Amino acid sequence: MSYFRPNIEKMNGYVPGLQPTGDKITKLNTNENPYPPSPKVMEAIGGVSPDRLRRYPSSTCDAFREEAAKVNRVPPESILCCNGGDEMLTIAVRSFCGEGRPLAYPTPTYSLYPVLAASQNCPGIEVEFDESYNLPGELLHTGAKLTILCNPNAPSGSFVEPSVVQRLAGEFKGKSVLLVDEAYVDFASKNCAHLAQANDNVIILRSMSKGYSLAGLRFGYAIASKELIRGLEKVKDSYNVDALSIAAATAAIKDQEYFLGNIEKVKSERARLTNALCDLGFKVPESQANFILAQCIDRNAAQAYKELTRREIYVRYFDLPRLEDKLRITVGTKDENDALLKALKEILHADGDTAR
Amino acid sequence: MSYFRPNIEKMNGYVPGLQPTGDKITKLNTNENPYPPSPKVMEAIGGVSPDRLRRYPSSTCDAFREEAAKVNRVPPESILCCNGGDEMLTIAVRSFCGEGRPLAYPTPTYSLYPVLAASQNCPGIEVEFDESYNLPGELLHTGAKLTILCNPNAPSGSFVEPSVVQRLAGEFKGKSVLLVDEAYVDFASKNCAHLAQANDNVIILRSMSKGYSLAGLRFGYAIASKELIRGLEKVKDSYNVDALSIAAATAAIKDQEYFLGNIEKVKSERARLTNALCDLGFKVPESQANFILAQCIDRNAAQAYKELTRREIYVRYFDLPRLEDKLRITVGTKDENDALLKALKEILHADGDTAR
Repeated sequence: MSYFRPNIEKMNGYVPGLQPTGDKITKLNTNENPYPPSPKVMEAIGGVSPDRLRRYPSSTCDAFREEAAKVNRVPPESILCCNGGDEMLTIAVRSFCGEGRPLAYPTPTYSLYPVLAASQNCPGIEVEFDESYNLPGELLHTGAKLTILCNPNAPSGSFVEPSVVQRLAGEFKGKSVLLVDEAYVDFASKNCAHLAQANDNVIILRSMSKGYSLAGLRFGYAIASKELIRGLEKVKDSYNVDALSIAAATAAIKDQEYFLGNIEKVKSERARLTNALCDLGFKVPESQANFILAQCIDRNAAQAYKELTRREIYVRYFDLPRLEDKLRITVGTKDENDALLKALKEILHADGDTAR
Repeated sequence: MSYFRPNIEKMNGYVPGLQPTGDKITKLNTNENPYPPSPKVMEAIGGVSPDRLRRYPSSTCDAFREEAAKVNRVPPESILCCNGGDEMLTIAVRSFCGEGRPLAYPTPTYSLYPVLAASQNCPGIEVEFDESYNLPGELLHTGAKLTILCNPNAPSGSFVEPSVVQRLAGEFKGKSVLLVDEAYVDFASKNCAHLAQANDNVIILRSMSKGYSLAGLRFGYAIASKELIRGLEKVKDSYNVDALSIAAATAAIKDQEYFLGNIEKVKSERARLTNALCDLGFKVPESQANFILAQCIDRNAAQAYKELTRREIYVRYFDLPRLEDKLRITVGTKDENDALLKALKEILHADGDTAR
């Protein structure tokens, strides 16, 4: 006999990527930014007084909202802060989904979405992306109350054009909500923020984890109509983000110059890494994120993953349809990427000439 | 037409206490500890490197778990960390409750519980405490899958003996879970931690907000059987507590000497404030928390609340059954308590001699 709800008892929890530590490791498995956060972040943290820790923080993270509103050119009331993007996904599923109110998403994608459906005891409807990761038309006819589009998508790095996303939002209008999970959008050439203003049923989710190098901080935010924000606010815990995180995230988003410089460095390494992997015989589609999904042509991907891990080089491998022949590799620093390329050369070479 | 689930559309969110700021105010309305956190906390925060912010934190807060396990004499696997006690309450309601799976709690109590029931779309069964805040016998027969006992209770400050709580847990065994919300237990003379080891259906909830002066940090933890912890872990977000909070909370719980010194100071002021309010004509039952619930005998409580607020002295007033004639007052520093007492004397005096 279990005390838990049957859906909770039955479900498997989300399995996060390994978080190994150590000086010698090369960690390219969970899409962290390879560069440190803005020095202003450390200053802001140092400026938080004991008195601010003693008292409850702002339940609406006002300081951050003001800055994020400026950056995104929306009113502060259109922004809701959360304890990492994952919390916003949880809040959205709890707000819109339930028994008879499905969640839908195109696959393969972020493996947290089915876990959230299971924990909310709602149907999770999966619709497959086509070969080139175009949006599947069936997504229009799922009857879902919430559809999540990860854009850029993980783990493919592919990107659906904002005009296509707008068509989807238009079709859902009056019926259901479209949440665009833009956790990786800082590394893309476009984004969908404007759709949150143009549509009453669109939520844009942003994260400070990747573009702003603050995965350790747990800070994300949603952009949506004031009406949607007001409803989501009722579901979130009152004080869901702490005083230190508010101070740090506010300093980070204010320092756009530092942020944009880091983004350019990652994009430039992404291009170099992509080319080098192609030279090694991998098939690497264009990525708009801070990782690439490299298809092993002459080599077993699971085996390559194991051999990299043995060398303390961590990438991500998913034993799932369409992914079992690929490695998802976070774009690291030049040195980290070089270490990966060197190891892959050795691993491929060990097979002899025929395997390149 | 609303995009939200009907229960979300219909519900009111939790209304947190006012968080006014300013140098001149006396803030005795949301039960913050009047003394700053341990100096070790500030040191620990200063020691967090940019690299730790860049990377994901420990999803199980291992450093904190080790220390909390020592303090509470339980295995680390019996501890689950959360982003403030409120997050743990949310996780528990999502884990055990749903349609046909009620939540129950004795009232009057923490006003978040009915909000969590509404957001989970489960029945919220309220059973009234008796006059002296003894545990009502009807609590045994609610059919709830989760019962929450706030102990010490807010806003009454009353305490149910651990032996009585054990009897309740025993009756629920094999049927449902008992969560003892010990947010205020650091100010009580006993606690129920041992019940989490002796029963497979008991969750003890602790908070670092009150006793450890860290409301701004959002850090709490649950103590329960390893089986319950494993299930709750599936429902929580993977990285629900950030790297700065883990470092700060770990330093705080390690510094037991500082913590115990602060607790004694609060208890001593609680006794002084209670006596002084009785001398002013209030009726003040014994409190085991860091606040007192003072009954206005000769005076309208709502009016007294307004007049205190006008003087920038903030206490909490609830316009609810059994509470509408009372003020809930957080125990402050000596100066803050004196400011409150002085203002109350003026307010009472303004009525003339007949009102004392």
